[in-house]
Amino acid sequence: MNSEQRKACILSIGNELLSGRTVDTNAAHIARRLRTIDVPVVSVYGIADDEPAIRRALGLAMTEADIVVLTGGLGPTDDDLTRRAMAGFMGVDLVLREELLGKLQRFFERRGFEMPVRNASQAHVPQGAAAIENPVGTAPGIRAQVDGKLLFALPGVPREMEHMLEAAVLPELRQFASGQALIVRRLRCFGAGESKIAELIGEAMRRGRNPLVNCTAHAGIVTLEIVATAAERGRAEDLAAGEERSLRASLGDLIYGTGDQTLAEVVGESLARMGKTIAVAESCTGGLLAKLITDVPGSSRYFTCGWITYSNEAKSREMEVPPEMIDEYGAVSEPVARAMAEGVRRRALADYAVGITGIAGPGGGTEPKPVGLVYIAVGSQNGTDVSRQVFAFDRSSVRLRAAQTAINMLRMKMMR
Amino acid sequence: MNSEQRKACILSIGNELLSGRTVDTNAAHIARRLRTIDVPVVSVYGIADDEPAIRRALGLAMTEADIVVLTGGLGPTDDDLTRRAMAGFMGVDLVLREELLGKLQRFFERRGFEMPVRNASQAHVPQGAAAIENPVGTAPGIRAQVDGKLLFALPGVPREMEHMLEAAVLPELRQFASGQALIVRRLRCFGAGESKIAELIGEAMRRGRNPLVNCTAHAGIVTLEIVATAAERGRAEDLAAGEERSLRASLGDLIYGTGDQTLAEVVGESLARMGKTIAVAESCTGGLLAKLITDVPGSSRYFTCGWITYSNEAKSREMEVPPEMIDEYGAVSEPVARAMAEGVRRRALADYAVGITGIAGPGGGTEPKPVGLVYIAVGSQNGTDVSRQVFAFDRSSVRLRAAQTAINMLRMKMMR
Repeated sequence: MNSEQRKACILSIGNELLSGRTVDTNAAHIARRLRTIDVPVVSVYGIADDEPAIRRALGLAMTEADIVVLTGGLGPTDDDLTRRAMAGFMGVDLVLREELLGKLQRFFERRGFEMPVRNASQAHVPQGAAAIENPVGTAPGIRAQVDGKLLFALPGVPREMEHMLEAAVLPELRQFASGQALIVRRLRCFGAGESKIAELIGEAMRRGRNPLVNCTAHAGIVTLEIVATAAERGRAEDLAAGEERSLRASLGDLIYGTGDQTLAEVVGESLARMGKTIAVAESCTGGLLAKLITDVPGSSRYFTCGWITYSNEAKSREMEVPPEMIDEYGAVSEPVARAMAEGVRRRALADYAVGITGIAGPGGGTEPKPVGLVYIAVGSQNGTDVSRQVFAFDRSSVRLRAAQTAINMLRMKMMR
Repeated sequence: MNSEQRKACILSIGNELLSGRTVDTNAAHIARRLRTIDVPVVSVYGIADDEPAIRRALGLAMTEADIVVLTGGLGPTDDDLTRRAMAGFMGVDLVLREELLGKLQRFFERRGFEMPVRNASQAHVPQGAAAIENPVGTAPGIRAQVDGKLLFALPGVPREMEHMLEAAVLPELRQFASGQALIVRRLRCFGAGESKIAELIGEAMRRGRNPLVNCTAHAGIVTLEIVATAAERGRAEDLAAGEERSLRASLGDLIYGTGDQTLAEVVGESLARMGKTIAVAESCTGGLLAKLITDVPGSSRYFTCGWITYSNEAKSREMEVPPEMIDEYGAVSEPVARAMAEGVRRRALADYAVGITGIAGPGGGTEPKPVGLVYIAVGSQNGTDVSRQVFAFDRSSVRLRAAQTAINMLRMKMMR
């Protein structure tokens, strides 16, 4: 990271964030938007509705960053203290702005009310600071410059905050945050854990390198984020593209997509492009596989029908799995998974078909067939492949991994 | 707030939190759980994967709080720096714990892998600190005492963090954070929004009252949390029980359960107790209804089979919905939902049956049939009820509300 680059700190104000009653989605939104204009966020503070605490956090933020974005605490009630804390921090008084008062009064008039007395507090800003217009609510924002650094205070209501961020904050910061260009690309991987992938890409994740490669894992998906910085945008783009090529060479098929793509989106796109259909027969995943496939808008183009054959009787009646097969091998077995996939492909007249049977737990495991054992069959006109997996997780994760693995097997089968 | 009271600070570690890619739900979860044992959170810091930044944040947190809970940065990759930052902050070395290394090796062995070399870093803890067992993942946590204050480092993976919080952190803090006895009870409601419920229970939510009633809403479920405090545990329990009786009198059937119960758990218990079975036919929910029902361990006792009849052809072929009916009323209509429920009940020989058809969006809406329109039919030997709903949400929320409403209709039908 270039030392010339402007950095930001986000302060989220409000007791509700500290009681756990509300999850702070504002900070993530602001961070995401600041990234698009090359401003990295170096820290996020969640602070109580407490004037000294807000002042302390402001002081700290100013030592860490060149830009501070506060959200929350601009309402009309007694526990909304951001305005006073800012003035205190700046060592100035709060002053009443007549034009803001007029706007507030008109806001209430348009709705057929008289302005409550306490809303007048929202027409005050620290001396020397500017107000940021709030066209969708009552609380104006505040913009101040202190020691060459920029402070923005926005309301905590996401819709109001987002609106003001786009209309006032980002345009000014695009100017202010000169310096380096920053390009971010993401590659999404499935089929190996975080440490295996780190091993495969070796030196790419070394700290202090440019491009930098960050690695995160969530629910079986490993995301590699390439962050390239350079004086010029084109150069940063070249760096990122070179890094992407090298990661692709190391990881091959483990990379299934880019950005925020899900496995179901990638496979759905292929099915739609090829004009093929898919049907599924699930046991232990209990509908989750179909749910993931139909999470994708427009999935009705390729997904026609699914079965959740939970009982043995349903497997035989619906998927024509011979009862003798279940007796001989058990419902959780390679032949039953295969018979389910083949049965559903025939039954739904689909191009591709999946059959899943397994033990999601917590009960039902035995020595030869432990909790987490899942057989996944994927069939097409070129035959049916069955994979045996043991997922050492809890019930919901066993189900999720099984469904994801099925979609990934489908992806691999479609590439052949 | 008692000045003797122990306070906590939460540090969330990870670049993904600062890039806006991930919303920090861990902090809210921890804050909520700490509240149940009377430990207020005074601040939440989101910090980069950067050793000096983590050390600085630790220093700050120790000035503000008596308890510091860190999450994240305990993984095996180079950008997981919490362990090193803690040791640096404490001025000690990281030491290898043989017993942790053995556990890690066994974790991988059970899955049929050899432990990747870099996972050995997870067997290190700062000298003088203790490890916190992680029965659901690889990263052990760390517990350290510094200047009479308590530090806990937990993994960032929510499932692992939550498990270790309950098993190790909260029990110790209950001792550490002395003071008044505090009883928390939760009532779970479905079928009315937060403001409607607030209206029905009136004065119960007034601040400063004991018992205090907090109200939160998430994904259609409204949770009322009764917090009663008293010098003695028995007295606090009496207060909470009295409040619960009064809320139940005001809310009646809107309360479906207690604690963390889901609608599917409550309905599943009733089905199992009565020895009845259920089958479902889904269109717009695409498997989500079956998934919610089978999320419950042991659901195979009452759930036998489900269909996702996504295409019109599948509705006719599988559920015997007459093609002329679809032509006349459309696939999203009262008669089709009814025919799906009746078809699936016949087909699966089930006691109860659900049929769902609707428009989840984002496309496919028309003036008379907007996005969010869903027909839900619930049938039993006493006939089939159909409800028409319009959910004004995005695709995934329309699907979730439709599935939840179906389960709630089932609950109401079973009570009659």
